[in-house]
Amino acid sequence: MFDQVIFAARAQQIIEAGRFLYGQGWSPATSSNYSARIDQEHLAITVSGRHKGQLTPADVMVVDLSGKAVGSDKKSSAETLLHTVVYELFEQVGAVLHTHSVNATVFSRLMADTNLVRFQDYELQKAFPGVHTHEGELLIPVFENTQDIPALARETQEYLRAHPNTPGYLIRGHGLYTWGETMADCLRHVEAMEFLITCELEMMRLSR
Amino acid sequence: MFDQVIFAARAQQIIEAGRFLYGQGWSPATSSNYSARIDQEHLAITVSGRHKGQLTPADVMVVDLSGKAVGSDKKSSAETLLHTVVYELFEQVGAVLHTHSVNATVFSRLMADTNLVRFQDYELQKAFPGVHTHEGELLIPVFENTQDIPALARETQEYLRAHPNTPGYLIRGHGLYTWGETMADCLRHVEAMEFLITCELEMMRLSR
Amino acid sequence: MFDQVIFAARAQQIIEAGRFLYGQGWSPATSSNYSARIDQEHLAITVSGRHKGQLTPADVMVVDLSGKAVGSDKKSSAETLLHTVVYELFEQVGAVLHTHSVNATVFSRLMADTNLVRFQDYELQKAFPGVHTHEGELLIPVFENTQDIPALARETQEYLRAHPNTPGYLIRGHGLYTWGETMADCLRHVEAMEFLITCELEMMRLSR
Amino acid sequence: MFDQVIFAARAQQIIEAGRFLYGQGWSPATSSNYSARIDQEHLAITVSGRHKGQLTPADVMVVDLSGKAVGSDKKSSAETLLHTVVYELFEQVGAVLHTHSVNATVFSRLMADTNLVRFQDYELQKAFPGVHTHEGELLIPVFENTQDIPALARETQEYLRAHPNTPGYLIRGHGLYTWGETMADCLRHVEAMEFLITCELEMMRLSR
Repeated sequence: MFDQVIFAARAQQIIEAGRFLYGQGWSPATSSNYSARIDQEHLAITVSGRHKGQLTPADVMVVDLSGKAVGSDKKSSAETLLHTVVYELFEQVGAVLHTHSVNATVFSRLMADTNLVRFQDYELQKAFPGVHTHEGELLIPVFENTQDIPALARETQEYLRAHPNTPGYLIRGHGLYTWGETMADCLRHVEAMEFLITCELEMMRLSR
Repeated sequence: MFDQVIFAARAQQIIEAGRFLYGQGWSPATSSNYSARIDQEHLAITVSGRHKGQLTPADVMVVDLSGKAVGSDKKSSAETLLHTVVYELFEQVGAVLHTHSVNATVFSRLMADTNLVRFQDYELQKAFPGVHTHEGELLIPVFENTQDIPALARETQEYLRAHPNTPGYLIRGHGLYTWGETMADCLRHVEAMEFLITCELEMMRLSR
Repeated sequence: MFDQVIFAARAQQIIEAGRFLYGQGWSPATSSNYSARIDQEHLAITVSGRHKGQLTPADVMVVDLSGKAVGSDKKSSAETLLHTVVYELFEQVGAVLHTHSVNATVFSRLMADTNLVRFQDYELQKAFPGVHTHEGELLIPVFENTQDIPALARETQEYLRAHPNTPGYLIRGHGLYTWGETMADCLRHVEAMEFLITCELEMMRLSR
Repeated sequence: MFDQVIFAARAQQIIEAGRFLYGQGWSPATSSNYSARIDQEHLAITVSGRHKGQLTPADVMVVDLSGKAVGSDKKSSAETLLHTVVYELFEQVGAVLHTHSVNATVFSRLMADTNLVRFQDYELQKAFPGVHTHEGELLIPVFENTQDIPALARETQEYLRAHPNTPGYLIRGHGLYTWGETMADCLRHVEAMEFLITCELEMMRLSR
């Protein structure tokens, strides 16, 4: 069904990503979920409710692209469908990370009047693929939070199909989703997005 | 009187919790106190005035549910009775942590007009038992600080008996109390509460 | 002249204190200086201009209570006299730490109109000797910064002689001095003072 | 052409600097670039696009003072010419560090109306060479960000030739450049500049 050796390697990437992201304070209190592609049909994903700074191979499982558990009866993250949407739409994506920082939470709530945030004039926008200058606008959608994950999955699918160059999105009061070709790319995107969000919050604090 | 092996295991959990909480900056300058249940009659609790990031087995002692030292003449935390109240009321509670962060201190003082704070629309509210959506209100009482611990213990007992689903409380200018079935649950509750408090402070800073 | 074994032990305490204080961000860019009493006549003190997170025994020297180097021609901290004043006045003091955090720097500058700051209603005031309740006022003098250290030494001497219960002082735009009977006590005082200063800054930010 | 042993030593300094600077959060998401002088004609410099907290010898290459790669066809940092300008102008400079912190980014953007920032009354100004009192003014130029690096290189060259005592500069929305005789000096300058920028941001937040 899927290659166990590739799965073990992907699980290890997820474990190490968790140690880093938790250490940054971006995945507190068992929040967040992470995945990595095994093949065209399968992904490795965190089991629901685990401590993200202390993941072991027993905290990572396999689901197929419909979100169904494969080879285990553990329950995968409640937000599994938000991951599968990205892998289905974008063949080249190898990793998806959902993080849950204070700054992403607060920023998405303060932007209450908008469902699209813009970053401009930051050199670090170049951390995202296809961006070669600080002068362009980087657009990040904000979706309303809901416990109806299938509905939110359809919403993100529709948006991303229409805007395939989007490098990530926010869920209001809930956090950030980003992806990349490799886990290293995806981690770079998390860092860059957290950086931009933190800068914007500081700018708001100081230029009111 | 109590099982020494269980006591040693609880003491080790307290030592490791201290290393984590001190490292987060939530237990500075020998503030804070931690406990874990040994059995229906006894709990392990930190000796008064110890460095919470450098706890050893010699910094943890046993008290009974009336707060009396058992098997040692060391002095347990001055706030021992705030711990025993929780264990007496809630049979399933296995750990109680009192932390003393800058943010909990400042937040409880800024909420000077209220003795009840509300958190709403945060996905992370789901870190607490029985919470399945961000849409409900999470209510956290704030008690006035006092050096009269027996009086404060009675006050918390009365409140918690009337509101058994409360996951924690603040003491104004003094910090946070939380509890859980296991030490891991309790640590998750500290992290979640610190997260929510930090978010609220950021929201206050930016939306004035 | 002085006991080499006691000196080596004090030097080791200073090295470890430096590693902690630098790690907290309270001694950046070779700022700060630390000392510990060897006997009634001698103290161990950091050599001028060393990296406080990477101290070795070669970065600690001996001076007498007049500030004169003993047994080495290295140059001790430019602020040596601010240390000797405290040891001369208070026989029981065993360690003096000068730190240089962002928050102490900013707080002392923002309090531009006053030479005395007050802390009240913080439980953590109890971290200082002789304080048993949050209800009293903790008073910390602020001295103007100057490059004339002998003059500043006389100023602090006069103040501390008149107010012997003072647990520390600020120099405007320059940082914090605290002391204690042991190095552990002194480190607790640094932590508590940084905590109180950080709380006050947060209160100022949010209650304007 | 250049001494391999000296190159290896410089590469190691760059690797260790990266581990520190990334750990401080000052070089996120593969931003930043670092160099160290090998001899009058050559410098070691980071290869473009590498993770600054995980540098290995394979991430450091040699360029000459015109910015041309020597002994490898790897691509050096896009901003190589900003480094060579400093080495050409100042014979005594042994290391140049470009960092990319949130605070330097935000500060340089908030100072939108000026191309020169001033620091005064900070004791830590003395961390820079030739500064012996907090009373003088420390002047740091701010250049506009651009993707035309040769043009920016000429601009910095002209400014630094006219103001040779400048210890560093900011690029708006992009970060900080500093240099020093040794890597240790240069790291001290980064720390001191980050400290001063952070203090100024805090002062702005609190004294509006």
